[in-house]
Formats: sequence, C-alpha cells, structure tokens
Amino acid sequence: MSAVPNDFLAKTAGLSESVIAPFPASAKIYQTGSRPDIRVPMREVTLTPTRSDRGVEINPPITIYDTSGPYTDPAVKIDLLKGLEPLRESWIAERADTETLSGPSSDYGLARLNDPKTAGLRFGHIRTPIKAKAGKNVSQMHYARQGIITPEMEFVAIRENNRLQEMRADPRYKALLRQHKGESFGASIPDVITPEFVRDEIARGRAIIPANINHPEIEPMIIGRNFRTKINGNLGNSATTSGIAEEVEKMVWGIRWGADTIMDLSTGKNIHETREWILRNAPVPIGTVPIYQALEKVNGKAEDLTWEIFRDTLIEQAEQGVDYFTIHAGVLLRYVPLTAERVTGIVSRGGSIMAKWCLAHHQESFLYTHFEEICEIMKAYDVSFSLGDGLRPGCLADANDAAQFGELQTLGELTKIAWEHDVQVMIEGPGHVPLQMIKENMDKELADCYEAPFYTLGPLVTDIAPGYDHITSGIGAANIGWYGTAMLCYVTPKEHLGLPDKDDVREGVITYKIAAHASDLAKGFPGAQVRDNALSKARFEFRWADQFNLGLDPERAREYHDETLPAEAHKVAHFCSMCGPHFCSMKITQDVRDYAETLGVDEIEAIKKGMEEKSIEFVKKGAEVYGRI
Amino acid sequence: MSAVPNDFLAKTAGLSESVIAPFPASAKIYQTGSRPDIRVPMREVTLTPTRSDRGVEINPPITIYDTSGPYTDPAVKIDLLKGLEPLRESWIAERADTETLSGPSSDYGLARLNDPKTAGLRFGHIRTPIKAKAGKNVSQMHYARQGIITPEMEFVAIRENNRLQEMRADPRYKALLRQHKGESFGASIPDVITPEFVRDEIARGRAIIPANINHPEIEPMIIGRNFRTKINGNLGNSATTSGIAEEVEKMVWGIRWGADTIMDLSTGKNIHETREWILRNAPVPIGTVPIYQALEKVNGKAEDLTWEIFRDTLIEQAEQGVDYFTIHAGVLLRYVPLTAERVTGIVSRGGSIMAKWCLAHHQESFLYTHFEEICEIMKAYDVSFSLGDGLRPGCLADANDAAQFGELQTLGELTKIAWEHDVQVMIEGPGHVPLQMIKENMDKELADCYEAPFYTLGPLVTDIAPGYDHITSGIGAANIGWYGTAMLCYVTPKEHLGLPDKDDVREGVITYKIAAHASDLAKGFPGAQVRDNALSKARFEFRWADQFNLGLDPERAREYHDETLPAEAHKVAHFCSMCGPHFCSMKITQDVRDYAETLGVDEIEAIKKGMEEKSIEFVKKGAEVYGRI
Repeated sequence: MSAVPNDFLAKTAGLSESVIAPFPASAKIYQTGSRPDIRVPMREVTLTPTRSDRGVEINPPITIYDTSGPYTDPAVKIDLLKGLEPLRESWIAERADTETLSGPSSDYGLARLNDPKTAGLRFGHIRTPIKAKAGKNVSQMHYARQGIITPEMEFVAIRENNRLQEMRADPRYKALLRQHKGESFGASIPDVITPEFVRDEIARGRAIIPANINHPEIEPMIIGRNFRTKINGNLGNSATTSGIAEEVEKMVWGIRWGADTIMDLSTGKNIHETREWILRNAPVPIGTVPIYQALEKVNGKAEDLTWEIFRDTLIEQAEQGVDYFTIHAGVLLRYVPLTAERVTGIVSRGGSIMAKWCLAHHQESFLYTHFEEICEIMKAYDVSFSLGDGLRPGCLADANDAAQFGELQTLGELTKIAWEHDVQVMIEGPGHVPLQMIKENMDKELADCYEAPFYTLGPLVTDIAPGYDHITSGIGAANIGWYGTAMLCYVTPKEHLGLPDKDDVREGVITYKIAAHASDLAKGFPGAQVRDNALSKARFEFRWADQFNLGLDPERAREYHDETLPAEAHKVAHFCSMCGPHFCSMKITQDVRDYAETLGVDEIEAIKKGMEEKSIEFVKKGAEVYGRI
Repeated sequence: MSAVPNDFLAKTAGLSESVIAPFPASAKIYQTGSRPDIRVPMREVTLTPTRSDRGVEINPPITIYDTSGPYTDPAVKIDLLKGLEPLRESWIAERADTETLSGPSSDYGLARLNDPKTAGLRFGHIRTPIKAKAGKNVSQMHYARQGIITPEMEFVAIRENNRLQEMRADPRYKALLRQHKGESFGASIPDVITPEFVRDEIARGRAIIPANINHPEIEPMIIGRNFRTKINGNLGNSATTSGIAEEVEKMVWGIRWGADTIMDLSTGKNIHETREWILRNAPVPIGTVPIYQALEKVNGKAEDLTWEIFRDTLIEQAEQGVDYFTIHAGVLLRYVPLTAERVTGIVSRGGSIMAKWCLAHHQESFLYTHFEEICEIMKAYDVSFSLGDGLRPGCLADANDAAQFGELQTLGELTKIAWEHDVQVMIEGPGHVPLQMIKENMDKELADCYEAPFYTLGPLVTDIAPGYDHITSGIGAANIGWYGTAMLCYVTPKEHLGLPDKDDVREGVITYKIAAHASDLAKGFPGAQVRDNALSKARFEFRWADQFNLGLDPERAREYHDETLPAEAHKVAHFCSMCGPHFCSMKITQDVRDYAETLGVDEIEAIKKGMEEKSIEFVKKGAEVYGRI
C-alpha cells in the first residue's frame, strides 16, 4: 500500500515545544530485560547533594514510572507523519500465529482508504493490517493460559517494579525505602512483580495487557488490582468541534503528564482518520467506544443500528489497532424500565443508545445476542473488552440502584463467556457515588465479576461542583483505587460543561495521578513511597529545584514559587515566603537533632515507653552538654 | 475614644466589585428565631420551571447555608471604614456579666493605639474593649452548662437546619429530600437540630461556638462532629509581603466562596492593625496563632519569648475580638527528641518556636506551665482554644508517630483542664497522612481528647504534588470529615511554594467546600443531599442556568460552558457540547419513562425481584402499546 500524500499535519501540526520538552533534571533511561529488544522506559530524576555543617551527602537519583513514550527522549526523532517505531512488531511476528491481510477487511475501512475526499486528512504510512491465522487466538490471556510468558509480560513486570530490586540492593536508598504498611482489602500484591506473576494474573483474568497486534507501537502496560493503579485520559472531537492535529497533540500532552491509556471518544467528523493518526503516534493503549462511530454511520438514529454495521465497525477499528473496546452489552431490556424513576435516567451515551435500540425493537441488543461473535473478533486481534456500565448513575441519588447492580451481574456473566474465549476483560464502573457507598461498588464488582479489573469513572462524591468535578471525582477515585479499582478514568474541570482543552487535560491527568498514587500508597504497593520520601527530604532541606523536579508537575511548582520569590537565589535559600528569613520551622529542627544526639537511643526509647505508660518524668539530662542554643 | 483619622483604606481599598456582587438568581433571606433580633442569614436560589411535553412543573427555591455575611446583601450598605453592625451587642449586654474597660488592658495594645506612626493605618472606629466582670465567666460553654440557651445557640440551630423542617412540610420538596443512609462512625447526628441539642453539645464539649464578646459582628456558627462540617481559610501577610487592604479583601473573598472561619496568620508588619481591620469587617469567627505576634515582639528570637510577653499578646488580641487562639501547649520537652529521626522534623511554625524555646531553657514551655492562667484569660472574653498540633507530621513518612500521638495525649489532658474552666476547646490535627492511616487519627482524637471537636489541616494523602496540594489534601479532608472531623483547614495550590493570592483562596475554599459537603453526605447529615438532587435534576432537564446557579461556583461553571457554547440560546438548548444536537443520552431517558409507564409498578417490581433471583425471563409486554420510538 503506497503512502497517501498528506499535507494536513505537515502544515498545521508539529507538536508544541511544551508538549515534548524533556522534564527538568530528568533522563530517559531504559532497563533491558532477558533479550535486548525488551527495553523498558523509565524517567530518572537526578538530585542535588545535601550540604550542611556536617558535610555533603549524595542524594541518589529517583526513578519514575514513565508514560510519556519516545516524546521525552531527546535521542528519538519524532515524526508524526511517519508514526512511532513498531517496537512489538518482531514479538508478534515471532509467535507465527498471525498473517498479513491483503487490506482492510471491513467495508467501511476500505471505503475510507480509497475515498479521494479524505486523502488530504489521511495518515500517510498506513500499515496493512494483520490478523490471527484461522483457528489461532492471539490474546495475551491465551498465551498466559498456556504457560507462555510473552515479551509483553516481561516488559510490564520490569516496568511495575520500577527498579525496586536495584534500590533494595543499594544502601543509598535504605531510608528512602521506608514505607507504611498498607491496607489492601484482600488484594494479593507481591513483594516483587515477576514475569511469572504477571502471566498468572492474566491467566486468571485479574489483570489485562491491552495490546492489539495492529498497535505494535505501544510500550506494554498492565491493568490489575495487584499492580500500580492506572489512569485513563479521554479525548476526541465532537459534532460541535473538530481538529485532528489538536487531538494528536492532546494525546501526547495527556501521556506527558501521566495518562496510562487514552480513550478516543470522537463523535464528530473524520473519526476514522483521527483514530489512525492517534494510534500510529500513541505509545500507550488506545480505547474506543465503537458504538459511537456506528451511530454516526446511521446518521445518529439509534434504532437504525444493526449488528452488521456494528460488526464492520469492530473489525475496522480492530484492524487499525484499537487496544480495548467499551461495549455496553449489559444493557438488557429488563433493566431499562428500572431507570425510569431515576433523577438523571441513563447518562452513559452508549447505554442510552442501546436502551433506545432495545425499546425500539423490543428485543435484547445485538451486543448481547452476538456476544460470542464479538469475542471471536476480539481474540483475532487481541482487543480487550472494557464492558461498559451503560446504566451507571449520573447523580448521587441514583447510586447503587437496582438498574446499576443488575447490569453489573450481567457484566459478570459476560466476563465468564469472554474468558471461555481467552479474551481479556475489564469492567467499567460509576460514576456518581457518595463516599460511604463507594466500597459496596468495589465489593460487588469483585464478587459478581470474578475479580476482573475494575475501571471506574471517578466516582464523583457530590453533584454540586460543576467546574471542579476533577476534584469531586478525584476524591472518589482515590478511595475506590484504594479499595481495589485497577484503572481510574479521569474527569476534567469541564465535565458536564464542555470539551476539555489542553489545560483541562493537564489538570485532569495530574488530579488522577494524585488519586492513583494515593491509592498505591494506601494499598501498600512496594516502593510507592520512595518518591514521597525523596521529595519530602528535598523540601525539608530547602533543595527547591529537587522538590519541584520530583513533583508530578515540576513546571507549575516552579512557576508558583517564582510568583512570590522569583530570584534564582531563592531556589537555594534556607527560608520560604511563608515564614520569611528570620523564622523558619525547618531550620529549628536541625537544633532538635543536635539535641537528640546528646540523649542517645536508650533515653529516647525510655521516653517513648514512658509515654505509653503515661507516667514518665522527663529524663533530665543533656542540657549542660547541649550548649548550642 | 475618638475615631483616629484614617486615610489608608479610603484611598486604596474599596472592595472589588467581584468580591461583593450578589450570586446569580439568589436572594439573601433571613429566618427569624424566637426574638426579632435573631435573624439567621441564608441564600435562596430561585429556579426556573421545567417545561416538557407534559406541561410546566415548578421547581421550588433551594436554600444554601451562607457564610458570606452582609457583603452579598444588597440591602446593606458596606462601609469598611466603619465596620459591620455589631449584631450580638445587645445579646452580650443583656447577660449583664461584662463591663466596658477604660481602654486596652494590654501594654502593647495601648502603645499601638497611641502610636502616631501607625495612625494612618489604623481602623477609625475602634470600640472600647469589654471583659467579664470579676468572677464571671462569659463562655458559651459556661452558659450551656448552666442550662442557658443563648441567642447564639438558637441562631446556630436555625442555621444548621437550613429550613429543613419547612421543606419537609412542603410537598414540593418531597423528591428533593431523598437521601442515602449515612455512615457516621458513631456520631450522634439528630434528625433536627434543636437549640437544646446545641446547648447540650456545647455543655459536654463536643461542639464550640467561637464568639469573643469583643467580636459582636459575627453571625454565630458551630463547630462539632454532629453538625455540618466546617472549613477554615487562612490569610495573612508575611515578612516578605504585606498589605492591609489586600488581606481584608481576601477575607471577604474567602467567606464569599464559603469559608466558615478565617485565620489571620500574619507574621509581617502591622499585625495589630491588620487584625483590627479584619475583625471589624468579619462576619465569621477569626482565629490567630498568638505566638507568631509574640515572636515578632522579640525580633524573631524564640528563646527570648517570655510568659509576660505572651500573656500581654493574648490580652491584646482577646480585646480586639479574636474568637479562637491556636496554642501549642502540648509541645512538651520529652516529645521534642522524638522528632529527631523524622524526615521533616517539626514543620508547625508554632511547634518549632516552642521546641526551640524548650531546648534553650531546658524546661517545659510557658504555654504548658501557665495553662490555667491562659484559661482565665480565655473565659473572660470567651476565646476558644484551638489546641495546636505543634508536632504534626510534615510528610507521609512521619505520619502517626510517637511524637504526634504523644502530643495528642497531652492535648487531651489540657482539654480536661480547660473544661474545668468552662473554656471551649477544639483540637488541631494533621497534616500529611496516607489514606489508610487517616482513620487512626480520628479514632485516637475522639478517645484521647474526649470527643472535643477535631480541626485538621487536610491531611495531604501524598507528598508528590506541589502546586496541587489543595487536591492532595482535599482527598484526605473529605475522608477525615466523614470519619468525624468537625472543621477542615483549607490548603491552597500554593501550599509549600508561596503565599496564596485571590485565585488560590477561591480554589482552596471551593475544594474544601467539596470535601466538607462530601463528608456531610457520607455521614448522613439530614438534608445534605437536597442541593445535589436539585442540581442533578436541573442538569438532566438542561436547565443550564439553574445548574450553574446551584453549584459552588456559578461563575466558573458558566464561564466553562461559554468556552464551548457561548450563545445564550445554548443555555436552554436540549443538548450539550459533549454529544452534539443529534445524540443526547438525557433526551433518550424521557422515552424510557414513557415506556416504563406502559409496564406499571407491579411488572417493575417483578423485574427487580427476578434480578435478585437471577432467573427471570423478561416480562414481555408493552411493545405494542409503546409506539413512540
């Protein structure tokens, strides 16, 4: 297939400098696995030494889980027109269970490829799709169940560990590895993530690696309760807005700040072409809701949807490389009337499309009746299910009701069917739920869906803050992540009000990185606290630049500090704007340490013991020795 | 005392229009109590009717707890130079247990009053201070323990109910009053807040009404676990910045967005004068940390602090009208060395000042040794204690350690002493605590401090997000509020980096209103869900303006909506930018309702029952009847 001439992105959309600038004091490093082509990307932040009266102490570098892909690697030349290197291509080829097709096998995909009207919009280096050979199943779950550890599995094991073993072996990290005991509510998080553990979790359905064979550009990642909590960022144009270049830039921007996967929720024009541009340039898994595009194909009339149109859409998108599909197959006819008395009815777009279809035809949806055929498509490309919660609550009042939990049971039944096909599954969850009712969602999901990974939108813990729903939902997300949710779908400040722009994407992603990290700390993920400890030590020692650079958003931290104390000298100053130069709490603590040394360990233990007994006279000593204050 | 000529604020500081503009579609209303001078302010939001095929449905107005004071009442003429009306003046006078002094009884207060150098900065209408008559105790706790229900107590009872009884009696509110069952972890929240309940809670120390007799301008509010969760906003100049007008404006701005109390943490120049301006114009309780000012008086040298200087500062501030004092009397000498091995030592400013003093003198602090004398001062003006957590953790690693919990025990012992004097007390709490360790803080506080109200700073649930610590802490705040914390001290995006400006104050306050409201919903505070329900109904029905106006920040909601769909016509449009005009989930739900009506209640109950049994065939009916889709 020859490259289609393209003048669209070339003219309009080199990425902004801000989107691809390397992070300050950071280097892209790669940890190599058992074979040289398993190169796991990480970001390493170099810190300055601690200088005090006692001399110079070296602060070792901190490794950060890195979702930004080659965009932040100065050694890689980015060319959006060509797309990223297909790093998984040889892994897929080696398995010798796929074949290259002669071209797109979906009617729509073929038509778009040959449509001269869209030629100017089209990505120029479209790869011919591949597919499982007849009778073969190319899903990671299928390999896992046969005991095969794929390169993808080894890749994610290394990635999840984030050099934990190396740190444990290095005495410089001893204090930094200090971490509180977690409360994981029955999760099975191991002390070290091995490739075999990854395989086992995938085999039993507790985790997924979304990795379509037609998306070889991804750096594999894993979604499961016993791994780091992940976040998803949504983007996509709509009927009232548009712009391919803008959406590609938003994708790169989203992963820069930490999105682990991206969902392309486009509903406007040129959905097919937009998706191709995003996929070819995306180092993270891409999810979609295929029913959105199917609906466009019938001009927005839900009742005109057919299995054939939907099936063609699945194949079209699977051959482009979409890694997971949201499919609302649990919206059954009998659940629909249960939403009638809700305050906000059915708010999921997919859910309401299917409800409308079911009512119009008075029969179960083709997503449900053709579910096994959908599984056949999924396993031929390794597309993962994200079983959609079409009946999720759209407000607090509707939380945890019969419609929502009825659908959840059906999603569990579908999970079992998908697993019979060795198709990977995650389960979507709410939505809007008050704090005290969040845990019930997690508990029911684990029980009804057999521990398949849970993937929730928030939940928002109140309805009264339009404009701040990244925060209302970030609170719920941190809690449900702690309880066991594997991936948190971000919500931006524009939720309920409009489409997110770049600022909103950044705000949404950072908020969700906070929620996900708070969850990891709370569930006790090994090594999660290293970054907190390193940043806090830098903060205490007035190593301002280190504090900024270890943060989730170094640019903003520096910018805020500059507002009050712009001079570069203040970045090493032993005071801050809150207290001023003469009055600094952190400075005083050094005196405390000097004093404690005059006491010694035994006396301090005696004090602690005495406190426990609530009956101690202070061990009087050291005042004479301690003459410095 | 004659008014000092003042040309400072007159020239430079009328309030900005944005700070005092009434909220859209809102009216300031007053609910009158048992006597005409108990007039409890509330904000009433008028909603538009719902128009559909079925006709017009009236949406009744929604009452919002209102902290903004007279500033949003168009009927009140605001004059910063004169200050607010002293609405409690007659209540205090009627009790006939106070006397007017001849002038400030603190040396410093007197000196500042007569200092010609500060004349131009000085508030012009300084009231002569009053004080309890010899042998009298004017604390709300003292009255409560004698069985007296003060006007302040009745005021807060009406305020907490927020017209709940009126709504319950009005059929228009039936659906809006729907609310999920809370989980209050052993709190004793009544179905209706009566003045007697308020009295009882204050008598037993479970709640406080901070209400200095020299701050008659306040609209009384209550802080306690069995009431609405409150939030505090901090402001104040520092040695590196300044500006009285700016701080007054920040105070008005903070209460506009919902701050229930304000702490003036000024450490820079003209602290005394700044405080006077703030107090005279503040309709909410004002808290301070007197040790900050005492330290200024000894030029920042902690070891030079004395009981006499501190005592004079307490009297100075009590006679100005400060409603609560943070006093770090729990920093005992024996706890200090327990902080030596911490990652971030002692981060509380007050705590580190006292630690430095204790070490320098090798004796317990004058806050501890003179605690009963402090109680004598507090009860002569009704200043409440906010017993400071000088040893709170400054990072996750230091959370819940021996130093922190040792101090908490001491705060409990001091609480008992204060209560022997009938002095009102709340207890300050952390700080930085990972999610899974937050509840231990609340449980220990309730046990060690005998259920005195807990007042926490966040806590931040991770250290890695400088620039976003309103969010890291908002997550912790929502959780600890749910567990029983009575007041949440806000954190702004500038935390750890710089001083908050007006934007930061707004962001911090709104974030904490979200956290506090999420807590109220979770603990099941009666009527808390009404606003959520009304807003969600508006959202569902595309009443955009109503959705904005019911939100915590109507301006921002409208502004965000305008970014995508600016035309005024879109504010009534039955679609939004997310889905476009042809494809709207909320629109479809009306069809579902029409369908459910064809089924009837019995069939729907049968479906629910069948779901529970997991063995139902869908009740086939209605497809013929239902011909509209």
